Amino acid sequence: MSNPFYKINSPFKISKILKSLNITVDNNNLDKEVLDIKDLLNANDTEITFFHSKKYSEVAKKTKASFCITTNSLKHYLPKSCVPIIVDNVLVATSKVTSQFYPDSVNDNFDDTVINIDETNFKEKVKYGKNVLIGSNVSIGSNCSIGHNSIIEKNVSIGRNCSIGSNTIIRNTVIHNDVKILDNCVIGKHGFGFFPNNNKNLRYPHIGIVLIEDYCEIGSGSTIDRGSMSNTVIGKNTFLDNQIHIAHNVKIGENSIIAGQVGIAGSSVIGNNVKIGGQAGVSGHLKIGNNVEIGGGSGVIKDIPDNTKVMGYPAKNIREFLREKK
Amino acid sequence: MSNPFYKINSPFKISKILKSLNITVDNNNLDKEVLDIKDLLNANDTEITFFHSKKYSEVAKKTKASFCITTNSLKHYLPKSCVPIIVDNVLVATSKVTSQFYPDSVNDNFDDTVINIDETNFKEKVKYGKNVLIGSNVSIGSNCSIGHNSIIEKNVSIGRNCSIGSNTIIRNTVIHNDVKILDNCVIGKHGFGFFPNNNKNLRYPHIGIVLIEDYCEIGSGSTIDRGSMSNTVIGKNTFLDNQIHIAHNVKIGENSIIAGQVGIAGSSVIGNNVKIGGQAGVSGHLKIGNNVEIGGGSGVIKDIPDNTKVMGYPAKNIREFLREKK
Amino acid sequence: MSNPFYKINSPFKISKILKSLNITVDNNNLDKEVLDIKDLLNANDTEITFFHSKKYSEVAKKTKASFCITTNSLKHYLPKSCVPIIVDNVLVATSKVTSQFYPDSVNDNFDDTVINIDETNFKEKVKYGKNVLIGSNVSIGSNCSIGHNSIIEKNVSIGRNCSIGSNTIIRNTVIHNDVKILDNCVIGKHGFGFFPNNNKNLRYPHIGIVLIEDYCEIGSGSTIDRGSMSNTVIGKNTFLDNQIHIAHNVKIGENSIIAGQVGIAGSSVIGNNVKIGGQAGVSGHLKIGNNVEIGGGSGVIKDIPDNTKVMGYPAKNIREFLREKK
Repeated sequence: MSNPFYKINSPFKISKILKSLNITVDNNNLDKEVLDIKDLLNANDTEITFFHSKKYSEVAKKTKASFCITTNSLKHYLPKSCVPIIVDNVLVATSKVTSQFYPDSVNDNFDDTVINIDETNFKEKVKYGKNVLIGSNVSIGSNCSIGHNSIIEKNVSIGRNCSIGSNTIIRNTVIHNDVKILDNCVIGKHGFGFFPNNNKNLRYPHIGIVLIEDYCEIGSGSTIDRGSMSNTVIGKNTFLDNQIHIAHNVKIGENSIIAGQVGIAGSSVIGNNVKIGGQAGVSGHLKIGNNVEIGGGSGVIKDIPDNTKVMGYPAKNIREFLREKK
Repeated sequence: MSNPFYKINSPFKISKILKSLNITVDNNNLDKEVLDIKDLLNANDTEITFFHSKKYSEVAKKTKASFCITTNSLKHYLPKSCVPIIVDNVLVATSKVTSQFYPDSVNDNFDDTVINIDETNFKEKVKYGKNVLIGSNVSIGSNCSIGHNSIIEKNVSIGRNCSIGSNTIIRNTVIHNDVKILDNCVIGKHGFGFFPNNNKNLRYPHIGIVLIEDYCEIGSGSTIDRGSMSNTVIGKNTFLDNQIHIAHNVKIGENSIIAGQVGIAGSSVIGNNVKIGGQAGVSGHLKIGNNVEIGGGSGVIKDIPDNTKVMGYPAKNIREFLREKK
Repeated sequence: MSNPFYKINSPFKISKILKSLNITVDNNNLDKEVLDIKDLLNANDTEITFFHSKKYSEVAKKTKASFCITTNSLKHYLPKSCVPIIVDNVLVATSKVTSQFYPDSVNDNFDDTVINIDETNFKEKVKYGKNVLIGSNVSIGSNCSIGHNSIIEKNVSIGRNCSIGSNTIIRNTVIHNDVKILDNCVIGKHGFGFFPNNNKNLRYPHIGIVLIEDYCEIGSGSTIDRGSMSNTVIGKNTFLDNQIHIAHNVKIGENSIIAGQVGIAGSSVIGNNVKIGGQAGVSGHLKIGNNVEIGGGSGVIKDIPDNTKVMGYPAKNIREFLREKK
């Protein structure tokens, strides 16, 4: 959450939310309004939250949210100040509620707010190529360049001294200073997040952003998806080579180096000073420590502690890998 | 075959075909005309077929085609109604003959029939971005959107409620309803099919199409090649993540989920409800059953039966994989 | 080196170079001018070279260069005719000096020299799509076509009978005759080469080019980076499928076939008649012999001799691989 861009459609009366979920709750607070949906930790008493796994029970006990979408078997963890809203599938219900707060965050049709940069004030301060398009709610710092046919869609903030290549598309992204993004990238589109459903999958909202910190470089043909309920982050001075795919909610630390065609699956967290060789893959929801080196072509399917070199599929300590493979 | 788009250059006199192959056949039917080239099963008595491997001998025995490009050692399988045309290399000869029937199917130069959508009737019914180009023989249903700089080249049919992203190129493709294709995709170009030949490879024709069924989603930066002699098919409600490559003639079933950077090699058939993890690869000409799960990063090099979970390279049963790798 | 495109900023007085490196050298040749920077083998007595590893000591002994950037422990290998310039980090210093000779070779901002092809003389001789842009110092032979939205940036030479697709970007590249490049490619950008440095990596110059020889084909969505101090070469009649990444300084021989999503890391040399299956990766600085076959999905981490079939990760002889994996 904490997305500076999405227009929130609020407040909502809880009764309206319940109606959208086809739920009747026996409670006299139904006319109370909520202002936003946040996670258990961050929600305050004007907000609704969600709780879908026992894994989060300690956080749930202390949530400040006034309402919580949850299940019958989890509701007893919640404090008395928080009214449980019981559903069968918490994530589906959360998705529906989030869609009500953020109706623009579900589909990613092309941005029809864009106009040619020639028709904007940026024409004075930005160095730009042919056919550059700029959407609404875009800011660009001093000394930036944007290449031919690139599209800065709505909700993008670009800092100072940044270079954007040609044929690149950016949306819902905050870029700090001295960042370089090469050609044919797609940054800030929604991730591969949906509830599988026979005949018609149900997409869930992506209200996070992509955050690219100072001095980063993103190679040609890369895709970086924005977060669903948190942000996708590329830390300071981290360099990505060509054709890399960074999925939603991934966080990469500072001074890391990621070679060509690497893929990082959703919600994994990569530390600082990490080196990842070409074509390596990291599964979702993993934690890769600081100063880790992952050999090219490796497939990482479990957490890796700090200061470790791994290789292979599944990736293991490099000495073990090389000994076995001799 | 059964391509609704390619303009067929027919009928041809058999004598003309033989001449193109530098072949003399001792037969009094040389002035007979043939209307098309099809496979052994589908060809009728106005058509020519080809037979290059003993593997197809049972089908060959029953072919209805009047002529068949084949070898001296295979010709005895053909029925008397079918005149063999003996060549050294059946596939090369078939390629040459197909090129005569479908001269436009060999090279994929840019489509010079396109005009700006503003100059077409689509401007009334389609929501579109800047610089959208539309080729000849294109149809688009109601309630569709097409993003900036996208090119709908010739021979494309798009159904209702479809969303095409920006910088995407589509050719020789039938898209059903409620399909979403994201940015920077290339769909419907010819596959990686040619006869290796020192100093100058010989491309063979790709007269198939890409068929994308209802409710599919195709992620950013993906490439889907059209079929050579059959079609490439993405089944209903199948979702593809970013940077996926689907080669020619691949058929994927319904409700399947394919994560980022997966590659499926030519002519493989994937079942329904299949889940494929990120960066996995499937070799060519394989059959992956229904409800199969393929772990991220796996390399599948043999058929996988229904309801199986596999992982590793080469991919094997997941329990076996995890036991060995502990 | 031997880049026909980069405008060299020369001659330089050695004293100026030393000043840029904050070095004082006790030598009376400080006012001598050097015309270029080259490697140990190719530099002549008007040029400066560099020597950073004992591995090159035999070449160093015979260098004709007048000056050499090197370390205290390596300088004794140099002939008396060559004045050592002692630094702590030879590659960083070489990078700085090269940047002085070739100031345009470090960053790859979009090419602001381009104009619409309609405004050039190419409009008479090239078949082209909408919105095609052409940079300075571009030559194009007869019978070529360039697709929509493609950008031929500065310093590109295209031969006869070439077909460039749509949305493709080319820079610093020499393309011979009868070459076909499909859609959404990025060819000739700088490679992933820099000196890691906390908080701000230091990019080194890429003064090489991409050379694509006769009859090659490059699939959609591929990226080929230009060389840093040598060239990236795709040999005659070599075919690349879609979404392939070829890093800087890679040299691929003739008649090779490389399937989809393959990645070749920097400075590796691939022979003639090599076949590489889909998604395979080759690590950097390797030598892959002639007639080698690398199975799909393999990860090659050591040299492969001629006439060998390998598979697996790390790739090994295919018979050994299949025996172990049964």
